[in-house]
Amino acid sequence: MPTNVRAYAATSPTDALVPYRFDRRDPRPDDVVIEILYCGVCHSDLHTARNDWGWSTYPIVPGHEIVGRVVEVGPRVTKFKAGDTVGVGCLVDSCRHCTPCQEGDEQYCGDFTGTYGGVDRHDHTPTQGGYSERIVVSDAFVLRIPDGLDLKGAAPLLCAGITTWSPLRHWKAGKGSRVAVVGLGGLGHMALKLAKALGAEVTLFTRSRGKEEDARRMGADHIVLSTDPAQMAGVAGRFDLILDTVPSLHDLNPYVPTLAPSGTLVLVGYLGGLEPALNTVPMILGRKSVAGSLIGGIRETQEMLDFCGQHGITSEVEVIRMQDINEAYERMLKSDVKYRFVIDIASLRS
Amino acid sequence: MPTNVRAYAATSPTDALVPYRFDRRDPRPDDVVIEILYCGVCHSDLHTARNDWGWSTYPIVPGHEIVGRVVEVGPRVTKFKAGDTVGVGCLVDSCRHCTPCQEGDEQYCGDFTGTYGGVDRHDHTPTQGGYSERIVVSDAFVLRIPDGLDLKGAAPLLCAGITTWSPLRHWKAGKGSRVAVVGLGGLGHMALKLAKALGAEVTLFTRSRGKEEDARRMGADHIVLSTDPAQMAGVAGRFDLILDTVPSLHDLNPYVPTLAPSGTLVLVGYLGGLEPALNTVPMILGRKSVAGSLIGGIRETQEMLDFCGQHGITSEVEVIRMQDINEAYERMLKSDVKYRFVIDIASLRS
Repeated sequence: MPTNVRAYAATSPTDALVPYRFDRRDPRPDDVVIEILYCGVCHSDLHTARNDWGWSTYPIVPGHEIVGRVVEVGPRVTKFKAGDTVGVGCLVDSCRHCTPCQEGDEQYCGDFTGTYGGVDRHDHTPTQGGYSERIVVSDAFVLRIPDGLDLKGAAPLLCAGITTWSPLRHWKAGKGSRVAVVGLGGLGHMALKLAKALGAEVTLFTRSRGKEEDARRMGADHIVLSTDPAQMAGVAGRFDLILDTVPSLHDLNPYVPTLAPSGTLVLVGYLGGLEPALNTVPMILGRKSVAGSLIGGIRETQEMLDFCGQHGITSEVEVIRMQDINEAYERMLKSDVKYRFVIDIASLRS
Repeated sequence: MPTNVRAYAATSPTDALVPYRFDRRDPRPDDVVIEILYCGVCHSDLHTARNDWGWSTYPIVPGHEIVGRVVEVGPRVTKFKAGDTVGVGCLVDSCRHCTPCQEGDEQYCGDFTGTYGGVDRHDHTPTQGGYSERIVVSDAFVLRIPDGLDLKGAAPLLCAGITTWSPLRHWKAGKGSRVAVVGLGGLGHMALKLAKALGAEVTLFTRSRGKEEDARRMGADHIVLSTDPAQMAGVAGRFDLILDTVPSLHDLNPYVPTLAPSGTLVLVGYLGGLEPALNTVPMILGRKSVAGSLIGGIRETQEMLDFCGQHGITSEVEVIRMQDINEAYERMLKSDVKYRFVIDIASLRS
C-alpha cells in the first residue's frame, strides 16, 4: 500500500505553493524509505516552481536538500537500516551504464532522474521532492550523514555543499592554491568554508561592503570589492580557481584577468541564458578557462559529507516552517537570507 | 661591429612590405648567430604588419617560424656550435624569474620578448623577425632541429606546430582520447598530424566539402561538415578536446555540445575581440570548458620538435620567394594556401 504524505506543491508557474497530498510508493527491493526531518531551500526550487526553465510539470513538490531518518528498507538493502540518519540530494537515479555513471559522475549522465520534476524509470510516475513528509529512494542514491553534524545545517550540503565541493576537487584546490569565490549566498558561503578547510588561500569577491565580517568568519583570507577597479587590478593574475556562485547572468570579463595562468573560472550559480560577450584575449594570453559545473556525483557527495563531518562544517541556516515557504521565496529573490533557508518538516505535521 | 642584413619590412599599416636593411647585434656571451634558411608565414605576421592589434611600431620585420644554420656562438654558449641546424619561434626572451618562466611556460610570462615587435631587454632596440638574412638570439630561446626533417616543412613547427602541440599535451590528448580540430589551415593541418601521432581518434570540423581527402591523409579519422546540423547532432557529447584554429571571431555555441562531459574547447586561432554570446547551459550540464592557449614554452617546443623528428612530421608548405610576400598575404586572407607559406630566405640574397 503506498503511503499518502503531506507536502507543499506548486500548481502553476504563478500561484503560491499550497498544501498537497500524494502517494509515496512502497519500497522496492533496493529502496530506502526516509522520514524527512529537514529540507533546504535552493534557488532551483524557486526556478522550477515558477517554470523559469520551461520544463516544469504541475503539481510539483520541490526540495532536494533532504535530511531524514530511515524508517524502512527493501530486502536487498544492506548499507542502511531503520534509524540511520541519511540524506538525499538532487538525483534519485541515473542510467547506471554510461561512462559518467561508471565513473561516479552521475550528474553528467544524460538520463539522470532528478529528485523532483523527473520521471521514475520503473513506474513512470513524476518524482516529487523534499517539501514532504517522506521520500522513497534507491539505496545507490542515499547518502550517510556523519554523526555529530547539526542536521538543520547539514541539509544544504546535499546541494549547495556538493555544488561547490565538486569543482574544488575537480580543479584540485588545496594547500598552495588560491581560490576566489564570487558572491556570498547559499553556495558562496559553503564555497568559502570548504575551500578554506581544503587548505586553499581564499578570497571573496563581493559587491557589498557589509559582508566582510561574516566572510572572514567563514574562511575568507581576503575580501575584494568587485565594484572597485583598483581592488580588482590589485588581484590581477592571482587565482588558480574562481567559483562563480552568482545566481543570475552577469559579465564575466572583469573576473577572467584575475585568474593566474592556466586558471579556471567555474560557473556554478545559475543555469540558463547567454552570457554577455566574453573577451577571449586574456584567456588565450594566459591559457585561462571558463567552465561550468553541475552539483556532483554520489561518491563525491559522500566524500564531501564525510569531510564536513571531520571538519565540523555545516551551512549557516535560517529554519522556517513549511507554511512560510512563499515568503521565503520572496526573501531569496532579494538575497535576504543568511545564508540558506531550511524547512523544519515537522511543521508539515502540525 | 654589428652586421647589416637584408630583410623585408612593413613600414605602415597600409603599405606593402618592402626591402629593408638593418643591423643585427654582435653576439653577446649567451647569443647564437643564425643564418636564416627558411621562415614560415603566420597569420600573426599579417596582423602585425597591418597593425590589426594596435601595438605595431614601424618599420617592422615579421617572421617567427625560423629555421637556419648556426654561424657563430658567444663564449658562454655550450649547447650549440657553428653548423648546427636550429630554430627560433615566437619568443626570443622572457623575464626568466616569474612562476610561468620557472615552470617552462615562458609564453605566459607577463614580460616576454616577442621575436618581432618586442624590445630587447638589454640594448632596448626593437626586435625584428625572420624575414631577414640572420638573427641573433640568446641560446635559451634557440631550438634544435632534429636530423632528417625537411627544413622547409620544419619552419612552421616553430609556431603552427607548437601552438597546437601545447594544448594537446596540456589537456592530455593521446590513446583513448577523442580530439576534434576546427578548421584546416596552417594550424589545423598540424593539429591533425600531431593529434593522430599522439594516438588520439581525430575528427576534422570543416565548412568545405573539398577537404576530406587531404584531411584523411593528414590523420583525420572522421570529417564533420559543421554546416550540416544532422552531422553536428551525430557527434553530440563526443570529444574530449576541441582545438579551434579558426583565425577569426565566430560562434562557439555549435561546438560546445559536441564536447564529452568534462571536455574542453581551446581557442588557438585568433587573438582579439569579443566572442558572440556564449550559451553556458551545456557547459554547466557537462562540466565543459572554453579555454585559450598561446603558442608554447621553450622546453615543450623542443619536445614537439623531437617528437616530429621521431614521427617524420612536418608542415605541408608552399615555398615562396621573399619578393612574393605581399601576394602571399593576399592569398592567405582568402585561405588560398596548402597549408603554409614558407619563404626561401636565399631569395633575399639573389
